[in-house]
Amino acid sequence: MAVNLHIPSERDIHPVPGIEIGIAAAGIRKADHNDLTVFRLSENSKVAGVFTRNRYRAAPVLVCETHLSNGPDIRALVINTGNANAGTGEYGLSHAQRSCGELAKLLNIRPQQVLPFSTGVILEPLPIDRLIDALPRAVDSLTAGNWLNAAHSIMTTDTQPKITSRRMALGGETVTITGISKGSGMIRPNMATMLGFLATDAGLSPKLLQETVRALADQSFNRITVDGDTSTNDSFILIATAESSVYIESAADPRYTVLFDALAEAALDLAQKIVRDGEGATKFITVKISKARSQDEALKAAYAIAHSPLVKTAFFASDPNLGRILAAVGYAGIDDLDIRHTKLWLDDVLVASQGERHPDYNEADGQRVMKQAEITIHVELGRGDVTEKVYTCDLSHEYVSINADYRT
Amino acid sequence: MAVNLHIPSERDIHPVPGIEIGIAAAGIRKADHNDLTVFRLSENSKVAGVFTRNRYRAAPVLVCETHLSNGPDIRALVINTGNANAGTGEYGLSHAQRSCGELAKLLNIRPQQVLPFSTGVILEPLPIDRLIDALPRAVDSLTAGNWLNAAHSIMTTDTQPKITSRRMALGGETVTITGISKGSGMIRPNMATMLGFLATDAGLSPKLLQETVRALADQSFNRITVDGDTSTNDSFILIATAESSVYIESAADPRYTVLFDALAEAALDLAQKIVRDGEGATKFITVKISKARSQDEALKAAYAIAHSPLVKTAFFASDPNLGRILAAVGYAGIDDLDIRHTKLWLDDVLVASQGERHPDYNEADGQRVMKQAEITIHVELGRGDVTEKVYTCDLSHEYVSINADYRT
Repeated sequence: MAVNLHIPSERDIHPVPGIEIGIAAAGIRKADHNDLTVFRLSENSKVAGVFTRNRYRAAPVLVCETHLSNGPDIRALVINTGNANAGTGEYGLSHAQRSCGELAKLLNIRPQQVLPFSTGVILEPLPIDRLIDALPRAVDSLTAGNWLNAAHSIMTTDTQPKITSRRMALGGETVTITGISKGSGMIRPNMATMLGFLATDAGLSPKLLQETVRALADQSFNRITVDGDTSTNDSFILIATAESSVYIESAADPRYTVLFDALAEAALDLAQKIVRDGEGATKFITVKISKARSQDEALKAAYAIAHSPLVKTAFFASDPNLGRILAAVGYAGIDDLDIRHTKLWLDDVLVASQGERHPDYNEADGQRVMKQAEITIHVELGRGDVTEKVYTCDLSHEYVSINADYRT
Repeated sequence: MAVNLHIPSERDIHPVPGIEIGIAAAGIRKADHNDLTVFRLSENSKVAGVFTRNRYRAAPVLVCETHLSNGPDIRALVINTGNANAGTGEYGLSHAQRSCGELAKLLNIRPQQVLPFSTGVILEPLPIDRLIDALPRAVDSLTAGNWLNAAHSIMTTDTQPKITSRRMALGGETVTITGISKGSGMIRPNMATMLGFLATDAGLSPKLLQETVRALADQSFNRITVDGDTSTNDSFILIATAESSVYIESAADPRYTVLFDALAEAALDLAQKIVRDGEGATKFITVKISKARSQDEALKAAYAIAHSPLVKTAFFASDPNLGRILAAVGYAGIDDLDIRHTKLWLDDVLVASQGERHPDYNEADGQRVMKQAEITIHVELGRGDVTEKVYTCDLSHEYVSINADYRT
C-alpha cells in the first residue's frame, strides 16, 4: 500500500540513448521470477557512484569501489535480487568478481568495466552458477525500452516499481534523464538494500560526474529513512552516456545548474518513492528543520523526529500527540538548544512556541492535518539560517508484520 | 504481558527505616485512581538524583535540580501521574513550585526541601488545584509499609508494579535497600517517563551519595532502552536515611564496595523491570559488546543493535535473521571497524566470525535460542578489552497498538 506513488505510463518513460537493458529469470531465490538485470552502456559513457558506509559492506559494493577506482569507463552493470552477497567473506568476493568476468566475456569488455549489485538475504552464499547460467539470456534480451521492466526486476519486497523520467531542453538540445530505484526499508525482512540508478545522455567530465553523484545523494537518498537501518548494499549510480551533443566540463558551465536541478528532481523522486513504498507506510512525512545553526544540527533534529517510533506510531494513528515531536528534538543532541526560541508547525498549523503549546492551537486543527496522507512537520530552532528536509513514513502494524515474517 | 517480571511478596518487601509513604486519588487524569504519592524522609536523610538530558526538561525536573542545588537535605517527595507538566512553560514551573510549597506547609518544612515528580501526558496544563486538594489525604495516609502501594500508584500504563527489596549485613549491622520504578517506553503513549526511587537506611556523605547515584544510573537506568525515546521527565533518585548505624564517608571505606554492589543490583533490577514491562515486550534481550576499544564504541554498537527495528521485529518473530545484527554493528559509527575480527553469538551459539557466517553454525541452533523468553546477543569487536551491556525488548504488534492508541 504505497502512498501516492506515481508510476508513469510507458509513453512518459524515455529510454536514455546509449543504454540497453536485458532481463532474465535466474532462479536465485524464487523460480520463474525476473531477478537478473543487465545494463549495457555505450562507448563514451562515464559512471560514478556512492555506496553504503556500513562497515559490513557487501562483496558487490567492494567490487564496485575497486572497479570505479580504475576510472569511470564502465560499460555494464549486473544486478541480482534474492541474495545480497553480504557477510559472505572471500567466497562472496570471488562470486561478485565472477559475475563481472562472465558478463565481460559475453559483451567483449574487461571485467573491470562491469559493476555488480546484489540485494536480498544476508549471510547466505550467492548461487553464482544459476546467475552465470542466466547471463546469456539477459544479454540476448538487451533493448533500449526495458526501463519499466528493469524497475520491476530489481524489486525485492517492494510493492511498486520505482521509475522517473523526463526530457528537457538544454542549450538548444534535448536531454533525457531516466532512472529506477528499489527499497522499502533500509533493510527488508531479509531482502536488503536501497539501489538507485540514474542515467542521462548528457556528457559530464569524470570529475564533475563524481561531484554530481555525491551532491545528488546528499539531497535525495541521504535524506530518506524508513526505519533508520542502513543496509550493507546501498548503492546509487549516475550514468552519463554523452550520446547527446551536450557535454559539460565544469560546474561553471551555465547549463550545469539547469541539468543538476533536473537530475536532483529525478533523484529526489526516486528516493521519495522508496519512502512512499516504505514497509507498511500509510503516510508520507516531510520533516523540515529551519533556523538551525548548522547542517549537522538540522539533520540531528530531523532524524531524531524521523526515527522516533513514538512519533511514527502517532502519525499512523492520526493522533496529534505532538509533545512527542518536541521530546525528540529535545534529545537530538543539540546541547545548548534554548527551547524558548523553538516553534513547531504541522503543515500551516502552529502547534507550539517558546517551548510550550501555542495559545491559539486547538486539537481539531492538529487532527485535521494528521488525517492527511502527506504531512510536513516543521520545527524552527531559532539559532541560525540553515534549513534541511528529510523524508519518512509512519510506523504501522504492517511494518511489524512484514519484518516479523519468517524468511521462508 | 511482562517478561519474567518478579513481584516480591509483601513479606519480602522491607520498609526503609526513616521513610513514610502516603497515597491519594487526586483525579488528575482519571477519577478513583491513586495518582498522588508522597514520601516523607526522616531528619538525617540525604538525597541525590540524576535527570533527563532532554532539552525539553519538564517543569518538575527543573525544580528538582534547583532544590538539590541548595543541598541534599530533602525531606519530602511529591509524585503525580496522569500529567507530565512538560511543555508547559512558566505556568508549569509555578505549578511544580506550588505543589512543593503546599506539601511543605503540611509537613512543616521548607518548600526547597521538597522534590516534585510528574509523569503523564505532555503539553497539557497540570490540574494543580486537584493535586493540592488531595495532598492532605496523602499526608494523612503516611506509613512505613506503603512501598508496594506506591509502586502501584506511580504506574501510568505500566502493566505491573516494579519493586525491589533486600536486607544485608554490613559491618555487623543490618542495612535495608528498597526501591520502586515505573515506565514501559522512554515515553508512553502520552504517559511520559521513567521514574526510579531507591532508598537505603545506610548513611552516605553528600559527595559520595551524588557520585553513587550517577554510577548506579550508568549501570542501570542508562543501560536500558525500549524504543530509544528519552522522556522529558526521566528521574532517578537515591535516598540515604542514615537511620541505621552504618555511615560511610568515602569510597575508600571497605564497606562501600559491598553497599554499592547491593545498590547496583537493586538499581539494575528496577531498570530491567522497566524493560520486562516494555510496551508490547515478549522477549527480554541482553546486548553484550566485548573486546571494544572504548566504552563509547561499545555503547554505540550495543544501542545500534538495541534500537534497530529490524533486529527487534526478528526477535519478536523468533526468526534467526541474524545478518540484521551485523548490519546494525556495521552502521554504528565505528569507522575503522575491521569486520574480520568480529564474532557474533546468540547465547552460546557462535553465529558469525570473520565477518561471515561461521561454518559450524546451523539455523536450528539459532532458532532454538530465538524461541527463549530471555536471550543474550553477544558481539565481540576484537579491538580492545572493554565490555558493556544494555537491555532491551523486542518490537511487537502490541507496541504499535499501544502507541497508536488515541490519548482518550
